[in-house]
Amino acid sequence: MIKFGIIGFGYMGHKHELKIEQTEDMELVGICDIDESRMDDASTPGVIKYTDADRLLENKDIDTVLIVVENHKHREMVEKAAKAGKNIICEKPVALNVKEFDEMVQICRECGVDFTIHHQRRYDRDYRTMKSIYDQNKLGNVYTIQSMLYGINGNMHDWHVYKKYGGGMLYDWGVHLIDQILWMVPSKVESVYAQVRNVINFEVDDYFKVDIKFQNNVRAEIELGTYFLGDKENWFEHHWFIGGDKGSAYSDGFLPKGKIVKTTRLLTNVPGKTTMTFAGPTRSFGQIDKDILITEDLQIADNDQIEFFENYRDAREGKTEFIIKLPEIRRVMQVLEAIWKSSEKNEVIKFDGGL
Amino acid sequence: MIKFGIIGFGYMGHKHELKIEQTEDMELVGICDIDESRMDDASTPGVIKYTDADRLLENKDIDTVLIVVENHKHREMVEKAAKAGKNIICEKPVALNVKEFDEMVQICRECGVDFTIHHQRRYDRDYRTMKSIYDQNKLGNVYTIQSMLYGINGNMHDWHVYKKYGGGMLYDWGVHLIDQILWMVPSKVESVYAQVRNVINFEVDDYFKVDIKFQNNVRAEIELGTYFLGDKENWFEHHWFIGGDKGSAYSDGFLPKGKIVKTTRLLTNVPGKTTMTFAGPTRSFGQIDKDILITEDLQIADNDQIEFFENYRDAREGKTEFIIKLPEIRRVMQVLEAIWKSSEKNEVIKFDGGL
Repeated sequence: MIKFGIIGFGYMGHKHELKIEQTEDMELVGICDIDESRMDDASTPGVIKYTDADRLLENKDIDTVLIVVENHKHREMVEKAAKAGKNIICEKPVALNVKEFDEMVQICRECGVDFTIHHQRRYDRDYRTMKSIYDQNKLGNVYTIQSMLYGINGNMHDWHVYKKYGGGMLYDWGVHLIDQILWMVPSKVESVYAQVRNVINFEVDDYFKVDIKFQNNVRAEIELGTYFLGDKENWFEHHWFIGGDKGSAYSDGFLPKGKIVKTTRLLTNVPGKTTMTFAGPTRSFGQIDKDILITEDLQIADNDQIEFFENYRDAREGKTEFIIKLPEIRRVMQVLEAIWKSSEKNEVIKFDGGL
Repeated sequence: MIKFGIIGFGYMGHKHELKIEQTEDMELVGICDIDESRMDDASTPGVIKYTDADRLLENKDIDTVLIVVENHKHREMVEKAAKAGKNIICEKPVALNVKEFDEMVQICRECGVDFTIHHQRRYDRDYRTMKSIYDQNKLGNVYTIQSMLYGINGNMHDWHVYKKYGGGMLYDWGVHLIDQILWMVPSKVESVYAQVRNVINFEVDDYFKVDIKFQNNVRAEIELGTYFLGDKENWFEHHWFIGGDKGSAYSDGFLPKGKIVKTTRLLTNVPGKTTMTFAGPTRSFGQIDKDILITEDLQIADNDQIEFFENYRDAREGKTEFIIKLPEIRRVMQVLEAIWKSSEKNEVIKFDGGL
């Protein structure tokens, strides 16, 4: 039985409470928030409520803490928890930069506590559906993977509007989207080029476009905009496109709708006008012969974010490894730093020997 | 009356014959192709057929030539025509590089002949529809303009598969897509980053993604793939997305289908869970309140590529300027060279002082 404390009981703190309730061999012992009223609706019977994290950490019944405070406090809180001997699951972004991350890893190692990060979006169905297409090599040689997420809000939520708290979309969703791509493509990163903007927000990024060049010749693009409007189905959800030399696949929505799309043949090059196979103003684009296109339904993955907690329990019991490994998350943080640097200098950030 | 000769009577040569027939005060006197059989289906009564361009250029009745030979022969044929005293409309890409282009301009100037380039896609309806939204400032401060063109063929047509003839999609469609963007955004280009690939073809590019950074803070992206598959409506046509801080606009298809999309309000930032306005697994994305989204129909432009020929006639008669100006096309060629260089070196190509 893993006995949890949750430090920070805002939006995500509440979500974690439910996940602990849903997972066998887990129990929530205590929760903590500096704003006592946020804990009024805690649903765990008998849960102990703290307004001071130090008091929660003194509770010997708690062996593991979920750190769900604002991003800029992760570093400090992880150190406190480690020194109190607690195993730690930290919310993403684990740290504000690579240096902070390295310090946190070092402290946890010295204190002999387990340390992992809540990157639950490795279990998102849309992601796993597309990852499976890539893993099974269904599209031939892949040349482009595009991951796109569009919003209608414009503004951020809560403290995410403030730079000093580690706000902005790169810290919030960016680390998920980067992590998904890095965990999908089994290759080193050769370079990163990115633009980061604040379209609506005053302080923090709310639009970014990232181009990751892998050594295996795959290019991945990540685009996120909190004010990127459309009226198509599932527009304000996660979209994917993967293009290979034997076909393409696309997906729209967190519960993915999409297809694998292939062709019965490639154009056979014939000189002269006889190659004018398409109507319209160009020979290369425009209306197509309908029989050339073949579509297959996506095999929708049945994953659920609860698997993060199940994996955590099983790993703690020694039955498996933590799905989220620290070197993987260090790499996410390195890409994140490269994104900011690239955008600021308008340069391609290259990793000698690959990242 | 402008009396034309067409040099090169392949696919586009035939198209030009029809345009000359359709335009008042234009007459087609002679056509030329090294393959005589290609001229069998010429539709102009009494048109003189040549298999040697030199003979066509000797015809004193012809005052203007359309040069529609393979791309690598444009430079040489423009020189011949200029020295024969003919005014010239050259097919795009006007030249293989900036150096060739400069030489062609110089020769035409010395010979005192008019010289312009067939960039008829400035009159494409989808382009003009979106350009008009930009011109009218309908979306507030624009941060992204995306121009996308996807194909099913994979291979190129005819001689476009060969590098030595100036094949590949950058020379074929790329120059159009670049020209459209440069003519839309009234700002200097700060930098270009690009990837150019051959996914299906052996020699020539069939996929490219170009990121143009303008000094006015607009970023334009151009993506073209000849094997980039989907089954959505008008997928194998031209797509546009423009994003601004007051709304977005999208268009699918050469006869554009799309919307201007705006919102009734932005999110008002409120601390705590009360900002959880959306269902689904995130507060920033997912299902939306339906009443927040407002759509407007696109005002479809009624342009037609025939206007290129009408403009040419009117400009020759001194009533207006040529729509396609040589410095504009020089800039297209400069961006094209930057694209190749960027892709080859994986670097951002910057223009000191702007291009």
